[in-house]
Amino acid sequence: MIKITFLGTSGSTPTKDRNLPSVALEYNGEILLFDCGEGTQRQAIFYSVNISKISKIFISHIHGDHIIGLAGLTRTLALNNREKPLYIFVPAGEEKSIIKLLDFDNINFKYSIIIEGIKSGIISKGDSYTIRAFKLKHSIPTYGFVFKENDKIKFDKKECSKLGIKDLMFNELKKNGKININNNIIKLSDITYVVNGKKIVYATDTRPSIGTVNAAKNADLLIHEATYDESKKNLAKERMHSTAAEAAKIAKKANCKKLALFHISSRYKNEDILKTESTVIFKNSFIPKDGMTIEI
Amino acid sequence: MIKITFLGTSGSTPTKDRNLPSVALEYNGEILLFDCGEGTQRQAIFYSVNISKISKIFISHIHGDHIIGLAGLTRTLALNNREKPLYIFVPAGEEKSIIKLLDFDNINFKYSIIIEGIKSGIISKGDSYTIRAFKLKHSIPTYGFVFKENDKIKFDKKECSKLGIKDLMFNELKKNGKININNNIIKLSDITYVVNGKKIVYATDTRPSIGTVNAAKNADLLIHEATYDESKKNLAKERMHSTAAEAAKIAKKANCKKLALFHISSRYKNEDILKTESTVIFKNSFIPKDGMTIEI
Repeated sequence: MIKITFLGTSGSTPTKDRNLPSVALEYNGEILLFDCGEGTQRQAIFYSVNISKISKIFISHIHGDHIIGLAGLTRTLALNNREKPLYIFVPAGEEKSIIKLLDFDNINFKYSIIIEGIKSGIISKGDSYTIRAFKLKHSIPTYGFVFKENDKIKFDKKECSKLGIKDLMFNELKKNGKININNNIIKLSDITYVVNGKKIVYATDTRPSIGTVNAAKNADLLIHEATYDESKKNLAKERMHSTAAEAAKIAKKANCKKLALFHISSRYKNEDILKTESTVIFKNSFIPKDGMTIEI
Repeated sequence: MIKITFLGTSGSTPTKDRNLPSVALEYNGEILLFDCGEGTQRQAIFYSVNISKISKIFISHIHGDHIIGLAGLTRTLALNNREKPLYIFVPAGEEKSIIKLLDFDNINFKYSIIIEGIKSGIISKGDSYTIRAFKLKHSIPTYGFVFKENDKIKFDKKECSKLGIKDLMFNELKKNGKININNNIIKLSDITYVVNGKKIVYATDTRPSIGTVNAAKNADLLIHEATYDESKKNLAKERMHSTAAEAAKIAKKANCKKLALFHISSRYKNEDILKTESTVIFKNSFIPKDGMTIEI
């Protein structure tokens, strides 16, 4: 099971209800963090996300609202006597900004912080997932991220039973890819099927982009920025952001199952208009509140 | 009137109830900020402190929990189209840490941020107040701050009436320092009295110190760190912090009117023990919660 917690859902500046961007994805006891706005460590306390489980942090771009939380989070992990390394992925060429932000006082972190410059492609693999980065369209180098659970091969139990496969035969099948039962050669592919791994896509900050459509193809969840409503589409264009309707069109074209509208401008006291404008294009749209969790 | 808002009252790491250190002092429409822990800008939203009124920020020392909030606060002020300069006072020699923290992405702030290195003594004067810095005893260079409202000279109305001074005579008195009424020379000092300006002292992080006693003499309010209870006095010593009882002894020796225990360790789910240990020594002790305001 993949558990997603929206730690902060605002854009640029915080509001009473929404903190700056950060999303925690928990999978097999490991937490992957996407962006880390100021105050993320405290949001994690509010919403029961155990920061000691964070193994990797994926930074979309180095605008302050997406990264300032790194400075405090890394220090708190040090105070908590963290020993295992922390990986921070950041657009290639921007590593020095992260270093300046973390190291303003020449602190000596007693655990390793590994800052990796990323380009498009697979940037990280876990026990049973991969993370792929893809380019977004923003005012500075910005990447979206695809979390893809590995596909699983399952035995078709009914078929196995019909063919008389049992017990130790499974090991032989897995090892050799086939088995001989009464002069009948049975191949692994005859009695297995593939369960597609789940796919979550995180895309902020960005103009709508065909790159996102391709990356988000058939995703179980697309988290896409929706900074503005349709009346501000020129502002969205000018500032290299998206409207809720533009996000919805991406989700529709990509045939996603769900769309979370994210990075909401602090000007909206009530975001109903964003939801309405999105839902009319893509039905399964929602606007997560800070602290909302979703299991996939 | 001086209005103090405790924006964050925790030490080192935030908790659900307490954010990292910051205190806002509002006086004559101007806000002075003492320290600026991560998340201070959002605490200001929660507790109705208008960040556009902040003119000066006084940084006690450059440990992360006291300064990381500067990075986000200064950016939000820029997004709000601030034009007037912002002064940041920081222990002399540590200016470069603040510059690194603010400037991690080579941002071009469109308003002036003036970073001033401070030593002991008067570091800033306002329309009717002065700020004096004094050395604290911590693991790195750290200063406490004294906000002192200017003393006011008031006319003794009863005495004035008795002597027949009225209307335009006051202007002559103010101008010449004396007035002649029926061959009776009346000096300004005969019919005026001094109202002492209010005094607020901010002292964190620190071991108890005679310097603080001197600085806090007769203060209306002493805000003093009280990271630990008495059972952890060795830890307090080792980490260069104070216990609540030690803070209380300072307030007592300095003959303060009130003591706010501040910079409470995140280990305390219930801080009653700190209040109890302080109150037994200094009666007017209290532990402000985040968002508490006090008018002096």
